[in-house]
Amino acid sequence: MNDRHSTAYDVRQRPPLTFHDAVPAFQSCADTPRAYLERCLATIGEREAVVQAWVVLNEAGARAAADASTQRWRAGQPLSAIDGMPIGIKDLIATQDMPTQMGCAAYRGHFPKHDAALVQALRAAGAIILGKTVTTELGMSEPGPTTNPYHPGHTPGGSSSGSAAAVGAGMVPAAIGTQVGGSIIRPASYCGNVALKPTQGAINRGERQGLSQATAGVHANAVQDMWQVAIEIARRVGGDPGAPGLFGPAAPPAAERPARLIVMESEGWALLDTASRDAFEAILDQLRVAGVEILHRNQHPWIEAFERSIADARAMTNEICAFENLSTMRSLLAQSPNGVSERMKRRHATGEAMNLDGYRRRLLQREEARRHLAALAPLADALIAPASPGPAPAWAGDIPGQPLNPRPTGDIAFNAATSALGAPAVTVPLASVHGLPMGIQLIGQPHMDARTTALARWMLETLRPHEAPGQP
Amino acid sequence: MNDRHSTAYDVRQRPPLTFHDAVPAFQSCADTPRAYLERCLATIGEREAVVQAWVVLNEAGARAAADASTQRWRAGQPLSAIDGMPIGIKDLIATQDMPTQMGCAAYRGHFPKHDAALVQALRAAGAIILGKTVTTELGMSEPGPTTNPYHPGHTPGGSSSGSAAAVGAGMVPAAIGTQVGGSIIRPASYCGNVALKPTQGAINRGERQGLSQATAGVHANAVQDMWQVAIEIARRVGGDPGAPGLFGPAAPPAAERPARLIVMESEGWALLDTASRDAFEAILDQLRVAGVEILHRNQHPWIEAFERSIADARAMTNEICAFENLSTMRSLLAQSPNGVSERMKRRHATGEAMNLDGYRRRLLQREEARRHLAALAPLADALIAPASPGPAPAWAGDIPGQPLNPRPTGDIAFNAATSALGAPAVTVPLASVHGLPMGIQLIGQPHMDARTTALARWMLETLRPHEAPGQP
Repeated sequence: MNDRHSTAYDVRQRPPLTFHDAVPAFQSCADTPRAYLERCLATIGEREAVVQAWVVLNEAGARAAADASTQRWRAGQPLSAIDGMPIGIKDLIATQDMPTQMGCAAYRGHFPKHDAALVQALRAAGAIILGKTVTTELGMSEPGPTTNPYHPGHTPGGSSSGSAAAVGAGMVPAAIGTQVGGSIIRPASYCGNVALKPTQGAINRGERQGLSQATAGVHANAVQDMWQVAIEIARRVGGDPGAPGLFGPAAPPAAERPARLIVMESEGWALLDTASRDAFEAILDQLRVAGVEILHRNQHPWIEAFERSIADARAMTNEICAFENLSTMRSLLAQSPNGVSERMKRRHATGEAMNLDGYRRRLLQREEARRHLAALAPLADALIAPASPGPAPAWAGDIPGQPLNPRPTGDIAFNAATSALGAPAVTVPLASVHGLPMGIQLIGQPHMDARTTALARWMLETLRPHEAPGQP
Repeated sequence: MNDRHSTAYDVRQRPPLTFHDAVPAFQSCADTPRAYLERCLATIGEREAVVQAWVVLNEAGARAAADASTQRWRAGQPLSAIDGMPIGIKDLIATQDMPTQMGCAAYRGHFPKHDAALVQALRAAGAIILGKTVTTELGMSEPGPTTNPYHPGHTPGGSSSGSAAAVGAGMVPAAIGTQVGGSIIRPASYCGNVALKPTQGAINRGERQGLSQATAGVHANAVQDMWQVAIEIARRVGGDPGAPGLFGPAAPPAAERPARLIVMESEGWALLDTASRDAFEAILDQLRVAGVEILHRNQHPWIEAFERSIADARAMTNEICAFENLSTMRSLLAQSPNGVSERMKRRHATGEAMNLDGYRRRLLQREEARRHLAALAPLADALIAPASPGPAPAWAGDIPGQPLNPRPTGDIAFNAATSALGAPAVTVPLASVHGLPMGIQLIGQPHMDARTTALARWMLETLRPHEAPGQP
C-alpha cells in the first residue's frame, strides 16, 4: 500500500482507497470498520500537514460510530452497503457535531447544530461522518489552504477542494461535494477522483436552496463507492424539494459500453494545451477501437446548435449565480464587511450590476441550452469531454501588489455548461498529463445518472489510462 | 373612521385602511408617513389586546424609518410608491432587527439578524417594517393567539394569521404572508382582506426553500396596495432562485372585465354551507348580469378532467409538504423534542409514513393537474371560487381531554389545489356571511398575476358586495 502514502500520481496504479472491496472482509470479520477507520486516520496523520483537506475532524465521534458499525457487521446486520464508510462532508453542508464555516471569515465559529438532509441519510445508512472538508469561500473563487495531493504546488481545484483532495490522498474512500459552476467535476479531475455531479436536484440539498443550479454530489475512488453513496442518500431523503430525486438501482450499475458518444467542446476546447488534448484524443482513439462511434460538432447540425447554445456558459453561470446570491451577499456585507474576501466582493459586484430583466434573459438562455441538449438524446448515449482544461494549474497563493488571479482553483470552462444544463456528469481518472491526473467526463441527459455511471464504469474498466509524459 | 375601530364587519363599508390614497396628501405635505404610522400605532394600541396579531413590534425603528420617509416625500424624492407604508412581516420570514420565532417553541428567541430578500426589497422601497405578525407553528396547523378582527371567538385563519388580522383590523395597510396549502388566501378571506398568492416562486423567498409549493404573497385592503407591494419586491429581488419573478406593470393594473370565468369546485364545494353557497351564487349572478359567461364543470370535458385531477388536492399537498419537511422536522425533534406541538408531530408522522416512491407519485399527480389547468387557458380568463368554505369558523382553543381539532384555522379545501397548481390567486372581500367576511377568489394561469389582479379589481369595483344575513 506504499502508493497510498506517496504523492506521485501513477495513473496505472489506482485506486488508492476504496470501500466496496473491503466489505467481504467485514462480513468475514477479517477486517472491521474500526480498523478501516484507523487506517484512514493514519493516512490523514501522514498527509494532512501538506494536503490540508480538513477544516475539522470528529475523531472520537467517528471511532464510536465505527465501533457501532463493527458490531452491526459482526451481527450480520449492516444498515446498508456503506455501513462503516468514513466520509468527508464539504464545509458548506451542516453537521450537528461540527461547525459549518463555509471557508468564510464571516462564518467563523458558525455552528448550526443540525444535520443537513444528506448527512442524516448518510448516518442512517451507517456511514461515518469523519469531518468537514475545506471549501473555497462560500463555494466561490477564494481558495482555502488545501493543496493537490499529487503536488503541493498545484491547486486541488475548487470549490470542493478538501473533498477531492482527501479522496485523492486516500484519506477517505468518499466525500460529499457540491457544484454550481464546476465545483465537483473539476477538483475531481485534478485529484484523480471518480465523481458524480448528479442531475440538478437529484440529491437533497436541504433547506438552503439559494442557487438554482447547485447540486450535491460524490467524490470517490471507485465508481461502485460513488454510486452507492449517492443512492443511499437519495433512497432515504430524496432530492431537492419538488425534484423526484436520483433514479437508479440500489447497487452500482454494471458497466455498459456506449454505442455513440458526442464530443462536447464547450468553452474548454480552446483552453486545452497540446498534451491534454492529445491525452483526450488518445482516449477517443481507444473508444473508436472498442467500437464506439465518436461524433463531433461538424457532423450534425443539432450538435453545432447545442455548442452555440453553451458558447458563453461561464458568463451565463456566473451571472445567474451572482444575481441569485444578491440578497445573501448584501446581508453578509452589511453584517460583516471585513468577513468576506476581495474576490467575493468582485463577484458580488457582478450581481449588483445586473437587474431582473438581465437575469430573466440568462434563465431563458439556460432553458434554450437545455432544449438543445434534449435534442441530442436520439443521437448518442452521452457526451464526452475532458473534465478540466488540463491537469491542475500551479498555485502558490496571491502575490501581494499583483492583480488577483480570477481562477486560482482552475477554470470551469468544461463544467459551467453541464452545471447550467442540469445534466448528470461523471468523471473518471483516465489520463495523466505532466505527472498529474486529468479526468474524462461523460455527460448524460437529465435523470440518466445511472446509465451515465454505467458507461463511465465501462470506460474505467475497459480503457487503458493514458499517460502523457512530463513533470508537473 | 369609526368603523376602523369597530369589530363589526360591514361588507359595504370597506376598506378600513389603505395607503395608495394617502400618497397625494404626502405629496402636498397635508399628511406625513410619520403621522400615518402614528395612526397605525394608535389602532394597534386600541385593538391588539384582543386581536393579538403581532409577535413583536419595532416602534422605535418604525418611527425613525417613517421620519426618513417623511423627509423624502417633502423633498419630492420618495423611493417608490410605497415609501412610508407600514407593513407587517409574517414571523416565518427573517428580519435583521427582530427575532424570527416561527410560532414554534423550539425557535423561541431565534434571531438570525439578517433581512430576508423580500424584507431587503421592502426597506429599499422605503416601506416601514413595523413588526412581525403571528404565524401558526412553522406555518402549519397549530394556531397562535390571534383572533378574528371581526369576532374574537372565531379564527383569523392561518398560517398567515397575524398578517391577515392586522390588515383586517386596520392596523397596517399591508402585510406579507406565505402559502403552502391555503395560508394566504384563506385567512385573507376570513379577515376581509384582498390578497395575492402569486405564481409559484414569483416573490423571492430567500435562501430557505424547503417546500416546493410555498409562496410569499401580500395581504392588503386595496388591490392597488396589494399589487404595489408585490411588484416593488419583485423589481428589486425577483423571485425564487431559477424563477423569473413576478411579471407585470410597475403600477397597479387597471380594472378589466373578464369575458368568461370557470367555476372551480375542488374539494371545497361539498363543504359550503347554504348561506355561503348562496353568497357565491349571488356573485355569479351579478357577473352574468354584467355580461360575464360562467362555465361549470359539466359544460366542458376539460373542466371536468381538471376537477378530477385536483379531487384530492388536500392530501396531495399535505403529503408533498410532509415529505419535504422530513429532514427539517427530524432535526428539530432531535434537538427539541418538547419544542414542537402534538399537531406538528402528527403531521411529521405523515411524512415518516411516506417513501420516495410515494413522493414521486404525488409530484407526478401535481404535474398532471398543472397540465389540466393549462388546458383551460383557451376556455376562460380565469377560474373563480369561494376563497374559503364559508366565513371563519368559531375557535376557542383545544379542549383538554378531547381529540385535537385537525383544522383549528379552517379548511384549505378551496386553496390546496391552487397552491399545488402554482397558479396565482387573488381574493377580494365581496361577501359577508353571518356577519363575517368571506372572500371570492380568482385563479389565473401561471405568470398571469397582473391580469388576474386586473380582473379581481374589476370585480371589486363593479360588483355589489353580497351580504347573507345572520350573526356569527
